[in-house]
Amino acid sequence: MKPAIEELEAKAKAAKAASRRMAYLSTEAKNKALHNVSSDLLAKKDEILAANRIDYKEAEASGMSAAMLDRLMLNSSRLESIAQDVLAVAALPDPVGEVFDMRTLPNGLQIGRKRVPLGVIGAIYESRPNVTIDISVLCLKSGNAIILRGGKEAINSNSALARIVQDASVRAGVPDGAVQFIENTDRTVVNHLLKMGDIIDLLIPRGGAELIRFVSENAAMPVVAGGVGVCHTYVDKSADVNKAVAIAFNAKVQRPTVCNALDTLLVHADIAQRYLPLVTAEWAKAGVEMHCDQRALAILKSAPSLKLIPAKDEDWGKEFLSLVAAVKVVDSLDEALEHIERYGSGHSEAIITEEYQPAMRFLNEVDAACVYVNASTRFTDGGQFGLGAEVGISTQKFHARGPLGVKELTTYKWIIFGSGQVRS
Amino acid sequence: MKPAIEELEAKAKAAKAASRRMAYLSTEAKNKALHNVSSDLLAKKDEILAANRIDYKEAEASGMSAAMLDRLMLNSSRLESIAQDVLAVAALPDPVGEVFDMRTLPNGLQIGRKRVPLGVIGAIYESRPNVTIDISVLCLKSGNAIILRGGKEAINSNSALARIVQDASVRAGVPDGAVQFIENTDRTVVNHLLKMGDIIDLLIPRGGAELIRFVSENAAMPVVAGGVGVCHTYVDKSADVNKAVAIAFNAKVQRPTVCNALDTLLVHADIAQRYLPLVTAEWAKAGVEMHCDQRALAILKSAPSLKLIPAKDEDWGKEFLSLVAAVKVVDSLDEALEHIERYGSGHSEAIITEEYQPAMRFLNEVDAACVYVNASTRFTDGGQFGLGAEVGISTQKFHARGPLGVKELTTYKWIIFGSGQVRS
Repeated sequence: MKPAIEELEAKAKAAKAASRRMAYLSTEAKNKALHNVSSDLLAKKDEILAANRIDYKEAEASGMSAAMLDRLMLNSSRLESIAQDVLAVAALPDPVGEVFDMRTLPNGLQIGRKRVPLGVIGAIYESRPNVTIDISVLCLKSGNAIILRGGKEAINSNSALARIVQDASVRAGVPDGAVQFIENTDRTVVNHLLKMGDIIDLLIPRGGAELIRFVSENAAMPVVAGGVGVCHTYVDKSADVNKAVAIAFNAKVQRPTVCNALDTLLVHADIAQRYLPLVTAEWAKAGVEMHCDQRALAILKSAPSLKLIPAKDEDWGKEFLSLVAAVKVVDSLDEALEHIERYGSGHSEAIITEEYQPAMRFLNEVDAACVYVNASTRFTDGGQFGLGAEVGISTQKFHARGPLGVKELTTYKWIIFGSGQVRS
Repeated sequence: MKPAIEELEAKAKAAKAASRRMAYLSTEAKNKALHNVSSDLLAKKDEILAANRIDYKEAEASGMSAAMLDRLMLNSSRLESIAQDVLAVAALPDPVGEVFDMRTLPNGLQIGRKRVPLGVIGAIYESRPNVTIDISVLCLKSGNAIILRGGKEAINSNSALARIVQDASVRAGVPDGAVQFIENTDRTVVNHLLKMGDIIDLLIPRGGAELIRFVSENAAMPVVAGGVGVCHTYVDKSADVNKAVAIAFNAKVQRPTVCNALDTLLVHADIAQRYLPLVTAEWAKAGVEMHCDQRALAILKSAPSLKLIPAKDEDWGKEFLSLVAAVKVVDSLDEALEHIERYGSGHSEAIITEEYQPAMRFLNEVDAACVYVNASTRFTDGGQFGLGAEVGISTQKFHARGPLGVKELTTYKWIIFGSGQVRS
């Protein structure tokens, strides 16, 4: 075995051993660890920023794009903001230890389920060094041990941050070994990590689509990966036009580069004549390019200021991640539901309506992680949902859906209190 | 594409289409479907038994073992018992539609989670034809569409049973296509099924260890597979000796061939002298062979009627599935916990104790699907746990642990009621 693989194996085993004690660590100790992390981030600011400058200069010299450099860069205000976020996680309720479905069976057995950590979480991520802190604190809060494997381009920053988490948590009584950082950035180490299904209970990839696909396809353990978000907003004939304009504008424009932004606007034919000119005029001011079906084009053709392009087949079901929206006129709620069924990715879908029946049908019939009535899909986010923070947004159906917070990093075990019962 | 694959694709798409309507099918219609299935099983008894006789004769002629023939065989009383079990599932509460974690956010958004079916469940199973009914009714009850692929040796029985489920459920208003049965028993069909991760949300393999391993390793979708059960019972120094004898006897002898039967008995040194002769005398009457460590041998050596064998290393962590038990004397609860941590498979573990502290430590520290105090591990079973029925027992940690009932065949979606909210 290569030394790098041996080191990985040793660190994974140490994490596994620590995870057993993490499972029943007191809430006090876990919160103390997070408070320590938060204050150490500020106290050791110079050290962290010096490490980050080394990464930044190397990345700059290697010709990294401005957007990627911005993701890599730490400064005082970013560190302060990260330290603040850690305190927010500390303030969340501890998900571990909750007992639910407890009842007494006819034979006197008392049986229930107790919430426990998943065990050992692996994280494979790219350039953003703040992920080191984000994932670590969510895992610590939920009683999981963690194996961190950050990208080569942020190795000095990640290493400095991981050391802070390790020191801060051990000082609070977290078992030594609960936070592991893999220094070796060789690809063979990742490949080996992906096969450690006997030790790692869940893997979280964070980064570009290529990394996420590679991890999802090759991991031997469950993977939670932020999926593609092809998000529809359907404006029913009964919609309040002002709400519908404000919501579609927000969903498309407020942050177009993320998964919960609007991709396709579906508009009922009975309201399209009135609604489409209003929403597209607002979108045009923000520079939105619109890929319209023939009926929408016919309504909008007299507005020369708009960036109108006839929609092609591939526009339906496309995640634009930019100031582009597809627009389609439909004849009924059923047609909208069928379109979403066919082209949606199961992320976030919204209906705008003032009527009860369409609202209830949309909520019942749309199969997506998050289904909205009269609100912007941009709310799909752990922080916005009141989860405090998130490790990602899942479009899978198994285990958990949508934003994943600390509770979603747990599972349960059955606990059974007997008094000598045997099975007959 | 081969005709068999084309047929599979068409059936899977029909199941997917039906699943959308299954998601909001009324509890009434689902229960009506199960009542129809139950009565049709009795009304069409002759037809089912005739089909079963064809399978049985062919299997007999091909030299199938008596145990396998017994699994394959249906008769009147078995059909009546299956019909009865279907009614028990009908009587369970409908897991679908429950709304939980509902709350109002500071911006007025009302947000909660609503329990929904997983979607399309695939089942790949071997000789027992009752699995056709078991899995179908659990899926119908939980609002899932189902794709059934039974073994070649039971093709006539399975086909007759699946037809009954299809007719009975469509008559109750279940969407046509919700229950699919794959007639073609070619291996290439299974291989193709395993790759349909875009349609099948969960795969349940039922059968021998080889089938389960093959499915687990090759499926593109989540798999729930009954895992290996290496079950320990630890008799603490504080144990009530009578309870400890009765529980260990029941756990080993009541049905030794199943996953929740006792494999290793751990006994505290302070009670071993008193306890071991009593439990082993009972075990000996039932023909249990004991693989003992040196300390247990030293205590038991004066009992010539026992089947005593010195334990080898491979006896620890072995699932015997027969009247064999490994026996080990330990010096402390800690040593027992470490042994279980090292050799357990995360299925079912028990402590026998009259003291509070060891009971609580065992419950907290053992990482297994089911952790017992003063009861037999044989209770790990959906029916015994009050779930009504089970699709299997999971030793995985993700999504659900232990016996999986109808609730475990569901997931949730976030539902958000707004009044025009946009994200700032």
